[in-house]
Amino acid sequence: MGESIRLVDLIQTRIDGFLDERTSILLSIGNDLGALDSFSREFLSGGKRFRALFCYWGWQSVHGTGNGAHSAVQNADERTLDTVVAAASALELFHAAALVHDDIIDKSDTRRGAPSGHRRFERLHQENGWVGDSAEFGGAAAILLGDLLLGWSDELLDEGLDQIADVSIRRAARAEYNLMRMEVTAGQYLDILEERAWNTQPESELLARAERVIVYKSAKYSVEAPLVIGATLAGATVGQLESLREFGLPLGIAYQLRDDLLGVFGDADVTGKPSGDDLREGKRTVLIGLARRSLPTGSRRLLDELLGDPSLSEQQIRMLQTTIRESGAVDSVERMIASNVERAVAAIDRAPLSERARDQLRELTTTVTRRNF
Amino acid sequence: MGESIRLVDLIQTRIDGFLDERTSILLSIGNDLGALDSFSREFLSGGKRFRALFCYWGWQSVHGTGNGAHSAVQNADERTLDTVVAAASALELFHAAALVHDDIIDKSDTRRGAPSGHRRFERLHQENGWVGDSAEFGGAAAILLGDLLLGWSDELLDEGLDQIADVSIRRAARAEYNLMRMEVTAGQYLDILEERAWNTQPESELLARAERVIVYKSAKYSVEAPLVIGATLAGATVGQLESLREFGLPLGIAYQLRDDLLGVFGDADVTGKPSGDDLREGKRTVLIGLARRSLPTGSRRLLDELLGDPSLSEQQIRMLQTTIRESGAVDSVERMIASNVERAVAAIDRAPLSERARDQLRELTTTVTRRNF
Repeated sequence: MGESIRLVDLIQTRIDGFLDERTSILLSIGNDLGALDSFSREFLSGGKRFRALFCYWGWQSVHGTGNGAHSAVQNADERTLDTVVAAASALELFHAAALVHDDIIDKSDTRRGAPSGHRRFERLHQENGWVGDSAEFGGAAAILLGDLLLGWSDELLDEGLDQIADVSIRRAARAEYNLMRMEVTAGQYLDILEERAWNTQPESELLARAERVIVYKSAKYSVEAPLVIGATLAGATVGQLESLREFGLPLGIAYQLRDDLLGVFGDADVTGKPSGDDLREGKRTVLIGLARRSLPTGSRRLLDELLGDPSLSEQQIRMLQTTIRESGAVDSVERMIASNVERAVAAIDRAPLSERARDQLRELTTTVTRRNF
Repeated sequence: MGESIRLVDLIQTRIDGFLDERTSILLSIGNDLGALDSFSREFLSGGKRFRALFCYWGWQSVHGTGNGAHSAVQNADERTLDTVVAAASALELFHAAALVHDDIIDKSDTRRGAPSGHRRFERLHQENGWVGDSAEFGGAAAILLGDLLLGWSDELLDEGLDQIADVSIRRAARAEYNLMRMEVTAGQYLDILEERAWNTQPESELLARAERVIVYKSAKYSVEAPLVIGATLAGATVGQLESLREFGLPLGIAYQLRDDLLGVFGDADVTGKPSGDDLREGKRTVLIGLARRSLPTGSRRLLDELLGDPSLSEQQIRMLQTTIRESGAVDSVERMIASNVERAVAAIDRAPLSERARDQLRELTTTVTRRNF
């Protein structure tokens, strides 16, 4: 993954340079805006750079088609490379914004093992001895930080697109980005709705509803859209885009199913979130949907009662983990992951892309669904 | 103001058409997204259309320069008109997004006399008998509604800009919009900061800090930026832009000072918010800064203690109103409004704009600072 590592550096440099320019404007308004500057930077250093990598490999898989270049980062026309790096960086800015808002919504205290946005502002309030409620200030300031990052993601995308002479490519990439932005917001809404509204839905529809959340909140957003945006920038054909979608969607589903397992069984060291976090939040995932289907009425009722209780003890978490595992739901989810990965790989095998690009996409498939990086 | 009235119709039609397209995508994902559709529409029907009008009149003041057209809406090239209508409509979408987030931040129950965004979602939760806390769902869903509207404002702006052949105009308008978006978010942050951090700032700086909030949160955002964006679309010269800024900034300050008076003394029928709302919210406005300067220590301390208490009684509100009025602060604010209006009018008098445009801007000055519409 040498190329991906180099790419991660390019992305970081691009984001840092962009933030330097923007936050210098902020700081010229007043030093009191320093927290918006520093928290933005902290949220945008590191992370998996997942969406950026998919954007790059979407671009690369098409860009490399005709010429079979073996070291594309070096060979690519500098301007074209900067376009995809800007777009990939914009996706990371968008993602940071989404996480800041998502953590307010989910009342998450931590993000990547460090305090979440609203918790940082809350602490700032406490440390400075300001008046009023610290948590309220934290939430309010984090809404604004997210808004700022949303606007910036957009600006950075435009910086990239402005370098493209072909209007149709520029508009197509924009349209994909806009659709992604709308769909992930809809997916987030469906996610918080499902946590509350599941009790008013027909039992038979709950699993399908959980799958819909995965598709919109995660699979399209984290994998399919970044791949397609990248490929669009390289002037992909309709056939190439279709292949990348056929690859990206099942891979994204597999990725999220893995994430759901980690949310319930994962180690805090790997996830950066407390173990069993999804249980305390009451996420109505596919895993939960499958468990509920198999559990006897008494156990299902207990699961429903405990799920979403933020004060669950370690012991209760372990009990729920055992219940879910013994229901057979974990095995079912593992089978779903495997079958989605299979679909993704099959889509690559027949894709009109270079052999090198296809190798790379296969490699990403393993990395993504293993999730140990 | 016949032209402005006709414009308001054009804006509404453009917004409705845009929302039709976007929400049909939402509804194709699921009927459960209906609330995002209907609440978006409700927030975007009516309102003062202030920012849209300034955008239009910024455009019109330059567009009409050379030809002295007397009925520009009819005469303007359809495509050019659609560009400015799209940009003006985008400003209204952005404003709706800002209000949805602002109402969460300020815990406002009402907006234009109707329930605010988070209150609507809260009610939806209650009415449907969903599980969990209704207010939490309300806040979470309203964050997402605001995010959705932010993205859409951007898309609608692009729809307008895409019709402009001149790259430099397109980029200049985008840059103004981006700067506006960043500055108003910074201004909102300074506003919520000031409510909490004023007690840790030197007494001598409080008034200047309140003035800074006005400039960024309101004056630039509500008047200067819309004017400049509109003028940029018409290909304004540097001199024309400078004049419009010299006009827009003081007018925007006067507008916000009037709004601050209404926030303390205004009638609920006019403002759509409960009387004395700013006192309960604890807004540290210029009005408050001036009052604190003049009040004897005892009264100042009492003001500081009561300000920001959400449970202030009607009687306490009336007492605070009397205290502020008797401090002479209201007269001072009225003088500031008058002097800012004077600066704005003086800027028009020497502006390199058509006589008709200048007449129109003068008329807007009165309308805006009278605020009885």
